[in-house]
Amino acid sequence: MTNTIKSRAAVAWGPGKPMTIEEVDVMPPKAGEVLVRILASGVCHTDAFTLSGDDPEGIFPAILGHEGGGIVEQVGEGVTSVVPGDHVIPLYTPECGECKFCTSGKTNLCQKIRTTQGKGLMPDGTTRFSINGEPIYHYMGCSTFSEYTVLPEISLAKVNKAAPLEEVCLLGCGVTTGMGAVLNTAKVQEGDTVAIFGLGGIGLSAVIGAVMAKASRIIAIDINESKFELAKKLGATDCINPKNYDKPIQEVIVELTDGGVDFSFECIGNVDVMRSALECCHKGWGESVIIGVAGAGQEISTRPFQLVTGRVWRGTAFGGVKGRSQLPGIVEQYLAGEIPLNDFITHTLSLDEINKAFDLMHEGKSIRTVIHF
Amino acid sequence: MTNTIKSRAAVAWGPGKPMTIEEVDVMPPKAGEVLVRILASGVCHTDAFTLSGDDPEGIFPAILGHEGGGIVEQVGEGVTSVVPGDHVIPLYTPECGECKFCTSGKTNLCQKIRTTQGKGLMPDGTTRFSINGEPIYHYMGCSTFSEYTVLPEISLAKVNKAAPLEEVCLLGCGVTTGMGAVLNTAKVQEGDTVAIFGLGGIGLSAVIGAVMAKASRIIAIDINESKFELAKKLGATDCINPKNYDKPIQEVIVELTDGGVDFSFECIGNVDVMRSALECCHKGWGESVIIGVAGAGQEISTRPFQLVTGRVWRGTAFGGVKGRSQLPGIVEQYLAGEIPLNDFITHTLSLDEINKAFDLMHEGKSIRTVIHF
Repeated sequence: MTNTIKSRAAVAWGPGKPMTIEEVDVMPPKAGEVLVRILASGVCHTDAFTLSGDDPEGIFPAILGHEGGGIVEQVGEGVTSVVPGDHVIPLYTPECGECKFCTSGKTNLCQKIRTTQGKGLMPDGTTRFSINGEPIYHYMGCSTFSEYTVLPEISLAKVNKAAPLEEVCLLGCGVTTGMGAVLNTAKVQEGDTVAIFGLGGIGLSAVIGAVMAKASRIIAIDINESKFELAKKLGATDCINPKNYDKPIQEVIVELTDGGVDFSFECIGNVDVMRSALECCHKGWGESVIIGVAGAGQEISTRPFQLVTGRVWRGTAFGGVKGRSQLPGIVEQYLAGEIPLNDFITHTLSLDEINKAFDLMHEGKSIRTVIHF
Repeated sequence: MTNTIKSRAAVAWGPGKPMTIEEVDVMPPKAGEVLVRILASGVCHTDAFTLSGDDPEGIFPAILGHEGGGIVEQVGEGVTSVVPGDHVIPLYTPECGECKFCTSGKTNLCQKIRTTQGKGLMPDGTTRFSINGEPIYHYMGCSTFSEYTVLPEISLAKVNKAAPLEEVCLLGCGVTTGMGAVLNTAKVQEGDTVAIFGLGGIGLSAVIGAVMAKASRIIAIDINESKFELAKKLGATDCINPKNYDKPIQEVIVELTDGGVDFSFECIGNVDVMRSALECCHKGWGESVIIGVAGAGQEISTRPFQLVTGRVWRGTAFGGVKGRSQLPGIVEQYLAGEIPLNDFITHTLSLDEINKAFDLMHEGKSIRTVIHF
């Protein structure tokens, strides 16, 4: 089992450079690892963030991609939870079930392999990818922009084979993050009012989550009004463009809602919007959840009075979802028709066209582009 | 019942000026109001904050004081919840039981009379205090630095007469705020770890709250080590002076606690300390509660990553305690020996000596000075 296989993959060589499609050598899985054949991968803003060079932790050369769906090809020694042929969704937030975080019952942020994952390495401190013997780094523990990738067993959610991987791959990041932020992190209740800032994949998924929670009012905010049609289709009750007002958007929302919303969600990664999202919350109990990832070194601020008068500021990663425990159930919800993933997929492209997926994103033309292998 | 009575009171004439003791005319209570004879009043940092001029909402001339204990002298028309002779604690956060906030079940921030209270006025838009016909303003709806004061009925907690007013007056602000922040707002559970920043009256009360909650570790932080003895007596397990370390105190605490505390409390009003308090919380679940009141225009900041990785930033006012519903029970806890109020009273002075109380506070010599009338 020591033979290296060849895999077509998009390799990111450095900040700001287009990726190139290469034939990469992929080592077989070591103990506790799994070789996965990727069938589809969504292209997420976080991939673009790293590719742009704004991500201070970005490591190159690397194979990006973290929103994938695939089939187990081969398992390493000791792997017990998946077998070849299983359908899996790679998890950039693993779930070991054993670390202080997993056993706390309070968070999904498993820390078992955080250090190596953050360095673009497998848990043993090496990479499984190389070209001509030169290492190519892993990305977010997933590297789904490759026909074949290797992941730790704890980074795989095994899901129902009835679910098309080219759709449920979106549950590997964006859709789960937005829905989970509403349902797991904020725990929105029936009748609550909600404001959602930014109508990309995450924000639209938050709209779906708010509908599932039976929120009474779902205010969707974006400066790109072309997003409003889908937001309304998914269940937004109000769509607002801040550019149409001559006062801060938080004031507009406070007026619209007789004092502010019960919950708000920042789905962009803009620290000024994070402040607006907090300050549009209702005095006494409103909670704002940061989902977006801000640029390096950027900081959020507000007057502490906002918190002293009862607002709560929190954040979420992967929607607070524990991947191996909860993602299979979310796939079942999709199969039951509760999650319209197809509405998110505006484009499908081949791996060869991957740079075009980033162009579409930057031009604001796509919600999600899915790469089909 | 229209005769005005004479009351000795400490009048604050303007920012930074010492108060003078005056004979003030006090009008009888109007409908829904109550005339209270004050027997004792604690002197709180918030009084000093307003007197200094740093409080942008400070109004002069006014009678300060908001941590009092007194006896009902006379009730206005329609008052039903108290009768003359009842012992009461004035509430700067009233509880009407009817407004959107009171009925929400989510906050203690009754807004029924907020607008007039913020302007130093009774709910009808006038003052009950005057000198030679010139109005003297109310303060925080309480004005307890006066032998006699008038309050709305909804701003009075009726308490057990067995409790000495010169001690339980401290439950009108500081002690309830600190304890309540731990027990009501944060809901600290048995075994949790806690960090408390600032060992004034609020911080020491937070120590008591943490002991009541059976916290496993109570880390008390102050740059004035003279506070440590009492903090330890009350139950702090570790006392730390940030000046003894050459790295940020949040890093020290994270190391001490294998990743950070479950809950932290900022009891000073310093925005830099508020950041330290947030950042010393455990990744994944740590929550920081702001209790201190910052100066006008000051802002808190942090990297959003702190929240995205699971920390929560919140605040509290009056410890989340609903005054009329909950304060009587807290007085019973005091009577049962659970709240050592006496430990907080480092000085007692007469009303004539009230400026000295502020001097003692500024010199860091007092925890609480109680004015005896």
